Amino acid sequence: MVSIDLNSDLGESLGAWSMGDDASMLALVSSANVACGFHAGDPAGILATLKGAAANGVAVGAHVSYPDLTGFGRRNMDVASADLIADVIYQIGALKGLAAAAGTQVTYVKPHGALYNTIAHDARQANDVITAMLEIDPALALVGLAGSPLLKLARERGLRVVAEAFADRAYTPQGVLVSRREKGAVLHDLEVVAQRMLRLVQEGVVEAIDGSLARVQADSICVHGDSPGAVDMAREVRRRLEQSGVTIRSFAGTAA
Amino acid sequence: MVSIDLNSDLGESLGAWSMGDDASMLALVSSANVACGFHAGDPAGILATLKGAAANGVAVGAHVSYPDLTGFGRRNMDVASADLIADVIYQIGALKGLAAAAGTQVTYVKPHGALYNTIAHDARQANDVITAMLEIDPALALVGLAGSPLLKLARERGLRVVAEAFADRAYTPQGVLVSRREKGAVLHDLEVVAQRMLRLVQEGVVEAIDGSLARVQADSICVHGDSPGAVDMAREVRRRLEQSGVTIRSFAGTAA
Amino acid sequence: MVSIDLNSDLGESLGAWSMGDDASMLALVSSANVACGFHAGDPAGILATLKGAAANGVAVGAHVSYPDLTGFGRRNMDVASADLIADVIYQIGALKGLAAAAGTQVTYVKPHGALYNTIAHDARQANDVITAMLEIDPALALVGLAGSPLLKLARERGLRVVAEAFADRAYTPQGVLVSRREKGAVLHDLEVVAQRMLRLVQEGVVEAIDGSLARVQADSICVHGDSPGAVDMAREVRRRLEQSGVTIRSFAGTAA
Amino acid sequence: MVSIDLNSDLGESLGAWSMGDDASMLALVSSANVACGFHAGDPAGILATLKGAAANGVAVGAHVSYPDLTGFGRRNMDVASADLIADVIYQIGALKGLAAAAGTQVTYVKPHGALYNTIAHDARQANDVITAMLEIDPALALVGLAGSPLLKLARERGLRVVAEAFADRAYTPQGVLVSRREKGAVLHDLEVVAQRMLRLVQEGVVEAIDGSLARVQADSICVHGDSPGAVDMAREVRRRLEQSGVTIRSFAGTAA
Repeated sequence: MVSIDLNSDLGESLGAWSMGDDASMLALVSSANVACGFHAGDPAGILATLKGAAANGVAVGAHVSYPDLTGFGRRNMDVASADLIADVIYQIGALKGLAAAAGTQVTYVKPHGALYNTIAHDARQANDVITAMLEIDPALALVGLAGSPLLKLARERGLRVVAEAFADRAYTPQGVLVSRREKGAVLHDLEVVAQRMLRLVQEGVVEAIDGSLARVQADSICVHGDSPGAVDMAREVRRRLEQSGVTIRSFAGTAA
Repeated sequence: MVSIDLNSDLGESLGAWSMGDDASMLALVSSANVACGFHAGDPAGILATLKGAAANGVAVGAHVSYPDLTGFGRRNMDVASADLIADVIYQIGALKGLAAAAGTQVTYVKPHGALYNTIAHDARQANDVITAMLEIDPALALVGLAGSPLLKLARERGLRVVAEAFADRAYTPQGVLVSRREKGAVLHDLEVVAQRMLRLVQEGVVEAIDGSLARVQADSICVHGDSPGAVDMAREVRRRLEQSGVTIRSFAGTAA
Repeated sequence: MVSIDLNSDLGESLGAWSMGDDASMLALVSSANVACGFHAGDPAGILATLKGAAANGVAVGAHVSYPDLTGFGRRNMDVASADLIADVIYQIGALKGLAAAAGTQVTYVKPHGALYNTIAHDARQANDVITAMLEIDPALALVGLAGSPLLKLARERGLRVVAEAFADRAYTPQGVLVSRREKGAVLHDLEVVAQRMLRLVQEGVVEAIDGSLARVQADSICVHGDSPGAVDMAREVRRRLEQSGVTIRSFAGTAA
Repeated sequence: MVSIDLNSDLGESLGAWSMGDDASMLALVSSANVACGFHAGDPAGILATLKGAAANGVAVGAHVSYPDLTGFGRRNMDVASADLIADVIYQIGALKGLAAAAGTQVTYVKPHGALYNTIAHDARQANDVITAMLEIDPALALVGLAGSPLLKLARERGLRVVAEAFADRAYTPQGVLVSRREKGAVLHDLEVVAQRMLRLVQEGVVEAIDGSLARVQADSICVHGDSPGAVDMAREVRRRLEQSGVTIRSFAGTAA
């Protein structure tokens, strides 16, 4: 039976500031990338999201970031290796602690924002993140961009890796994401997005921006949690997949 | 054989700012209260201190605090229970993660600064800290002020508690700390301090500020890490104790 | 001709996190209490709000706070005088700088949240805030709770003071706010609120929670900016007042 | 009569963490680059340094930075223009406020750390800093690296510019700083440093790392405030210059 993981960025509120609709998303996804306080998330809010994940049987990952609340972790920062390694361990550890209190556990790491984009191609910072994971818990899986050198690097160093595709993003013929700065990079039609993801799961291809077919091998699909319409898109993707016989299931093996 | 624990506040540097002499103190104490990033400590600096603790066989505790870098956690803050519980879990978790990477583990919690003083008598916040510890790891011991209601409360809720005395502080005849605002509250003579601590260990008494003998039952002695002369005082206390046949040993049972 | 000031808390977004509807409120109020970065507000967001205030002819005040983003400045903090004075000067200065860049100026100070409540009755912290204002710019007015000792204190030390009432809050027969912890403390009916504020302006009284009439002398009415329905309430209060011949005008003398 | 400015980075303590010896340096330099809270400096500490500057007749500049306390502003950050402009205005404004309270004023801006190095050659961020200065106060001077494109850019946009040399740094034959990563980049011999600065002032040249003479046109000499030996070096440079008839005088025209 065919199955796929749906993941979303959650726990991104901060004190009095709300972001996203965690309760709704937790009913739709199989994996929750939970903020760890460096780009978003205060401990009490994170804990509430983790309790929701536990109640919904949703797998939990550490959404680690550069330390940059004001920039929401979206700004490149030239963090030295000793700092980056320790920052990532600190965040994973903090989330592990809160997850234990919530009756669940952290099973994977998905870097956030600028860190995610940087390590997709920057070997130094990629190795720092991998080192951090190996030092705190080598059983953690790493979720990264499908087709990126990061995944090969992490696999060689002994980590389980999970390739992810983005539901609402356009791809080049080479199976690489079209830059957000280019026209047509972000898709908004729910029908189209859902149909693309079904094809991705069933045939391992997406229609690229030039109309050709791009090969994309993904174990997880990211449905963003913080944009308007995110819940509707996640619902439609899930509906279409399930209707076609695809099971939504965490790559860790938990059906959600 | 008589033994006692010596503890000190460590890991309190922050990026470019240095505080204390962790390397020297780690050779003298049996327990390190390590900052968790809320009042002091950046992840890379904390990790370095934890590696030092591991290398010296020093037990590690989480020195949890209110979130207040500028005030070094010394300012009272009226933190709601949901926040305080989650803040404490977050800090313990972060330190557990870094400790795992350093090859050691967190065995106790000692709240810092204003939080330490508040929970000594404030039952609401005391219970929040206890709840946090029980939720993340009920095997953690709680280090608190000898004679404070906190210890009884924590014991009743099932935590192992450790009463601590302060090497350089004057006591009232009732065995309570003389407020820092009063004259003579802080002792500076190394000889006097060392002799007092020996008597505390051997007889369970300290000479109070009025010359009478106060009963103080302590399992650990705090030698502050961040004041000038801290290393000299710790060295003299240790020397005097060992010379008199007292073993310096973590309350967790590890000789240091 | 009768006039009154309407003020609202604005500029409280933070980076990716949005709060309130500044654009709508700036069309309704005559004074904007603008966050200064300690409880809310990043510099770029603050600057955008200030440009909006300038474009709408809305007076600008510094909404100074304890340093507490996670707690949104709502938690009591025991800040020493040297720190509190400098913190308030720093925030006013920062806002003055951004206001200059926006083509407007800061004409008053309204402390936020826990600081607002504390200085209404705590003379030490009240005097610290007053000292800060006198040191940076003695022409600044201080907006404070109608009937509070703060206003007398500030007036005696030479500041212009502005008493404010709260549109959506219940009052005791003595003209004091009913605590938010009590039932009926917050009013939600737009009609009722607008009618109460009209009576406040015209007769200097509000109907207290026990049905008696409380005397409240106010130069400004606060219509909160961050609660749902805030814009509707501000619009209704303004409509009712204007329809009855009351001019909405900043206490600094600027009609808005 | 020949004169030169000596500047140093001050106000870089943070709460309980001390850095540098501001009191000693303020007796030696003519210009103080004062931290603004983004890489270092808490408001009360900044205010104390400003009062010292006022008492010593030392000119005050805003030492603006990326928002990065943990990294001490030394890490490159890809800050968008709207944010960078507002961040710089915010910092200058905050320092202006504190300076007013200290009885002095901010007369120039010297970016710090990674921002300093980036704008020396990055036109986008350089223009953002210049825009910020023009928007808050076009009378501010900009202190930048002698020979860098930044100075030309700022001059063209109407700012007064001040070129600075570094007392303890080696130069290439082209008059460019030798990278800190290269051997011999930092000089430690007080005699040598003082003699080099005298020649720089008198002849407009420094001996480059290859023994040739490099032309360096500087209006100010930076003597670092945060390294060990900083005070001794500043004292020796000043002594040697004064002994040779050079007056130490702020570029703003104030003798110190």
